[in-house]
Amino acid sequence: MTNLETYLKESRALIDKALDKYLPSAARAPKIIHRAMRYSVFSGGKRIRPIIVLEACKACRPRPRARALRQSCLNKALVIGCAVEMVHTYSLIHDDLPSMDDDDYRRDKPANHKVFGEANAILSGDALLTLAFNILSKHLKPEICIKAVKELSEAIGTYGMVGGQVIDMRYKGKAVRAATRKYINKLKTARLFEASAKLGAIAGRAPDKKVKAMAIFGESAGRAFQIVDDVMDDEDYLESSGKRDAAVLAADITDKAKGALKIFGNSAARLKEIADLMLKRRG
Amino acid sequence: MTNLETYLKESRALIDKALDKYLPSAARAPKIIHRAMRYSVFSGGKRIRPIIVLEACKACRPRPRARALRQSCLNKALVIGCAVEMVHTYSLIHDDLPSMDDDDYRRDKPANHKVFGEANAILSGDALLTLAFNILSKHLKPEICIKAVKELSEAIGTYGMVGGQVIDMRYKGKAVRAATRKYINKLKTARLFEASAKLGAIAGRAPDKKVKAMAIFGESAGRAFQIVDDVMDDEDYLESSGKRDAAVLAADITDKAKGALKIFGNSAARLKEIADLMLKRRG
Repeated sequence: MTNLETYLKESRALIDKALDKYLPSAARAPKIIHRAMRYSVFSGGKRIRPIIVLEACKACRPRPRARALRQSCLNKALVIGCAVEMVHTYSLIHDDLPSMDDDDYRRDKPANHKVFGEANAILSGDALLTLAFNILSKHLKPEICIKAVKELSEAIGTYGMVGGQVIDMRYKGKAVRAATRKYINKLKTARLFEASAKLGAIAGRAPDKKVKAMAIFGESAGRAFQIVDDVMDDEDYLESSGKRDAAVLAADITDKAKGALKIFGNSAARLKEIADLMLKRRG
Repeated sequence: MTNLETYLKESRALIDKALDKYLPSAARAPKIIHRAMRYSVFSGGKRIRPIIVLEACKACRPRPRARALRQSCLNKALVIGCAVEMVHTYSLIHDDLPSMDDDDYRRDKPANHKVFGEANAILSGDALLTLAFNILSKHLKPEICIKAVKELSEAIGTYGMVGGQVIDMRYKGKAVRAATRKYINKLKTARLFEASAKLGAIAGRAPDKKVKAMAIFGESAGRAFQIVDDVMDDEDYLESSGKRDAAVLAADITDKAKGALKIFGNSAARLKEIADLMLKRRG
């Protein structure tokens, strides 16, 4: 097996190529919005969500003999992965706005609104969200399109990502109880990871049981991811007992995530490696 | 035939009831976002776009004998009409933001961001856009869902509504050539009217020829609508030759719109009345 680092690099290259194909060219009018969309999509994202879509699909379609079917499933997963990444990017652009988290930098580069202005930042987020649904309808068959639109829209609506951001904003600068923080993370982050893993399994034509197992994997991996993120973001955590507690919690949840993959046997080996990597990352 | 005013009032009641059903209850958490969404959706909109979806469908399904089929088509048109109205509302909320058109009032009521704050206004727009696609996936069959998602997402993306707003922002406070204004209106307004009429015909299972005719109707009706809007908004137009020119242009385009309805014969009588009403309105 290729080592994980090389493997992820190759996956990212595949995803980036597809995103480049689905995003309007920066040479097409209105250029400013297409440039703004591309600026944030290609600003060094780790592509963790689309990688999970692809890997969940692969875990459900392990047979190398049924190569044509496997490839057809993976093509669908790639479309869905790109839609998920567009949605994730839109959420970052809107979250960074002055009236939201007011972040001038994202991934060590100026935030979208610092480069293109607030109006274009709002509109490029709107456009990425719209484009995500558009590519699902353009590049999938009706039966899988409807499932992808439903799952994705539920994961990012007011009972998912947007709802999480609403509650997060309400507690901005205030102390947050652990249970509330857990609830925010579930909505704001874990729900989209859950949808990613589920939709990968659906693209892989998995039976319900496997789709459900993938949902548990995704949700848990997403929660662990967000805890690690919160620890990295919050310098006050450093060397404190809170940091140790969070690390133990994230490790426990990662174990839960990997436990959900049991029914996939060795086909989910990569997904387990990825879950471990998400836990250990430093950026 | 019921008079037009009563007829439209009944259509609006039907649409409002469906919107109320599809929008999350204001009693469900996170309440603030659901209240914000409902505030703008139920703030006195004329429901002109969903009415066009419904009427386009009816013009394609005129047979009173095939009542069950007709009703099933109309149910689909109603779902699509609600999605279009949610999208329209999201666009108003975002357009009114301080960094965009900076309007404190909309339909004589405080703009969404004046009541709920900028962050919640941005998020409630995002949530309405997301919910529009969600209801298409929840309440339509796969074959029509995919068409609706594709048509709607194209009408409101960077080659449609969002693109129009981008260009409109660029010319803010500057003189705009007639050709540019026409282009902005086509993208920002006419494209969604076009999608509304087209999708109504698709819900009515119309053949391609009729879908295309409805597209021409919708696009023209939308352009006339926006010209009338611009005249009403711009006080400088008053009593000027520009105002007379615009009125002549809007009347010509309305004639074009009605001309496209020829193949529907008497079944499109209501749509023609509506096109005339859109031209003559004063608010």
